[in-house]
Amino acid sequence: MSLSDLAQPHVARLHAYTPGLQPTGQGWVKLNTNECPYPPSPRVAEAIRRELGDDGASLRLYPNPKSSLLRAALARHHGVREENVIVGNGSDDVLNLLVRAFCAPGAEVGFTLPSYSLYPVLVEVQDGRCAIVEFDRSMELPWPRIRASAAKAFFLTSPNAPTGVGFSPAAIERLLGEFGGLVVVDEAYAPFARENAVALLARHPRLVIVRTFSKAYALAGARVGYALGDAELIGLLDRVRDSYNVSRLAQAAALAALEDDDYFRATIARVVATRDQSAAAFAARGWFGYHSQANFLFVEPRTARGETGPAVAKSLYDFLFSHQVLVRYFPSHALTASFLRISVGTDAEMRVLNQTIDAWLQTA
Amino acid sequence: MSLSDLAQPHVARLHAYTPGLQPTGQGWVKLNTNECPYPPSPRVAEAIRRELGDDGASLRLYPNPKSSLLRAALARHHGVREENVIVGNGSDDVLNLLVRAFCAPGAEVGFTLPSYSLYPVLVEVQDGRCAIVEFDRSMELPWPRIRASAAKAFFLTSPNAPTGVGFSPAAIERLLGEFGGLVVVDEAYAPFARENAVALLARHPRLVIVRTFSKAYALAGARVGYALGDAELIGLLDRVRDSYNVSRLAQAAALAALEDDDYFRATIARVVATRDQSAAAFAARGWFGYHSQANFLFVEPRTARGETGPAVAKSLYDFLFSHQVLVRYFPSHALTASFLRISVGTDAEMRVLNQTIDAWLQTA
Repeated sequence: MSLSDLAQPHVARLHAYTPGLQPTGQGWVKLNTNECPYPPSPRVAEAIRRELGDDGASLRLYPNPKSSLLRAALARHHGVREENVIVGNGSDDVLNLLVRAFCAPGAEVGFTLPSYSLYPVLVEVQDGRCAIVEFDRSMELPWPRIRASAAKAFFLTSPNAPTGVGFSPAAIERLLGEFGGLVVVDEAYAPFARENAVALLARHPRLVIVRTFSKAYALAGARVGYALGDAELIGLLDRVRDSYNVSRLAQAAALAALEDDDYFRATIARVVATRDQSAAAFAARGWFGYHSQANFLFVEPRTARGETGPAVAKSLYDFLFSHQVLVRYFPSHALTASFLRISVGTDAEMRVLNQTIDAWLQTA
Repeated sequence: MSLSDLAQPHVARLHAYTPGLQPTGQGWVKLNTNECPYPPSPRVAEAIRRELGDDGASLRLYPNPKSSLLRAALARHHGVREENVIVGNGSDDVLNLLVRAFCAPGAEVGFTLPSYSLYPVLVEVQDGRCAIVEFDRSMELPWPRIRASAAKAFFLTSPNAPTGVGFSPAAIERLLGEFGGLVVVDEAYAPFARENAVALLARHPRLVIVRTFSKAYALAGARVGYALGDAELIGLLDRVRDSYNVSRLAQAAALAALEDDDYFRATIARVVATRDQSAAAFAARGWFGYHSQANFLFVEPRTARGETGPAVAKSLYDFLFSHQVLVRYFPSHALTASFLRISVGTDAEMRVLNQTIDAWLQTA
């Protein structure tokens, strides 16, 4: 038999997730993958050097299979118990475990459109069905469609990507009331938001919250994420999880980052200040943008003549790209095709962005 | 609905893989998880420090999603093309991708018993069925049972764990002839063996070879493994793979280890010398053991009175444990219950092992 006869039929039809471009050359202003513009806490590099020792000898040994110290520290950080925490190889790993544990092949998993574009990929790898709940331009949760869903699990990004719109704890609690299945709130960007849903965990066993070290902790390169949830749920995910899913260096890095809470808060304050300043600058240009609670802005470019739309957004994307300013463009849906998603960089990077937009306005 | 109503029914019934004990205290002679007794190449720690820089700033950026430099280096190392290589978060990640791509729920995956005890876990997570091909005490491949298998994929560990028995390229080629599905040869321990199956890849698109940096490269703590196979197969696995499955530090570490081939060969030579010396010592005691091609020995403990069996093996395991010498015991199967698997340590560690066995022989 040939390979394509042997493989699961749906696998050959899969579209892999398209990660944001990672340019290898120099000189790019990289505002396309919502990375933190500031380095991680200095304690991270120290902790990695300590774990390495002189000769890297500790690397010959397997890591702690449960990331025990990190679980304990996360439990303290969030005021939950260790059995309410699971650590993954990035939050993508945790999201994947959730799909595997809760989605039988052919079964439905719900999520909104737009939201994190990894969800349909994970559901399709599992041969599940995507129960897509579309927003309208208001980006408010479409309750009737959520209520009608027969999915066993619903993934909500809050604050949402790529819009930056945050959902209040009251909205999450309403979601738990209107939808009877597992509610996964993906809080990758919650450290930049006013509110989060962690306090709801104590009274909602159907709620699971997913977090990452990739954004506010500036550790996208280290691959650490986690989930908080009911002990029974965490136990299920642990059964599906790879035993050694988080490396020694990643565990050490995340633990050090978590313990430097002052640095964490200072980083967030800087990013939020730049975000709000940049949002005001776009508003001053007369551009529409959603009120962002995340570390990026989702704005609708407008030419000097007042035109908006997909061609305008594409024109600015291309212009920025040709000037080595990288942002993200999602042309495949009407709700996103007229917008660009711009990660919040340093103030200097945002100045370059704005100057390049000024130059584009002259030409467009 | 409750969590257990929402989760896939088979997930709640899963038995998680039991990793070997990772003691946290001091003073242990750790011969239980086939780690390398020597540190990785000094270039590994250098490469990680270089990737970190002063302040760990590169960690704020996502890793290369395809581990491109490492893929290219592995392709050169094995004389294949880049499209024949995929890199995973440990070889366990790659094994999991293979199961997901080739095993539909309810479908059979074949493997031998004994072999790596992760395979049934991966198959059960996928809700597949384990088509177990049992060895007899000869540990030669049971061809009639393999021929009769209707599985779509067959996993063979070569050299096998926990026996250490290696299978020749001729045997692998025969397997490809007798079995019509995907043949996964898990060569985690092949660097310690006389032979491997890499040369067969060029003419067998149904063959995939899985390797790891955890053993001979001494990087178990860094989590890097890979597979070599037909470009179409690698393409399928890449569709199922998480986009950022290997961290920046892990990519840098593995690349540095791979490039220090002299160190790699010297490490293997030391381990093999100690292994063969230790095997001779067990033979001199009159103990039966399989001819090991790996970095561990699988031996049948024998009391001074000549008794063997599960109670004897358990007695030695417990005695060693009580003296802080950690080996691995697999009591659940008749073919393994009278044996202990002993990882090859340093010569000093093997002396402690032998002295502790001498002490046990006095008591048993």
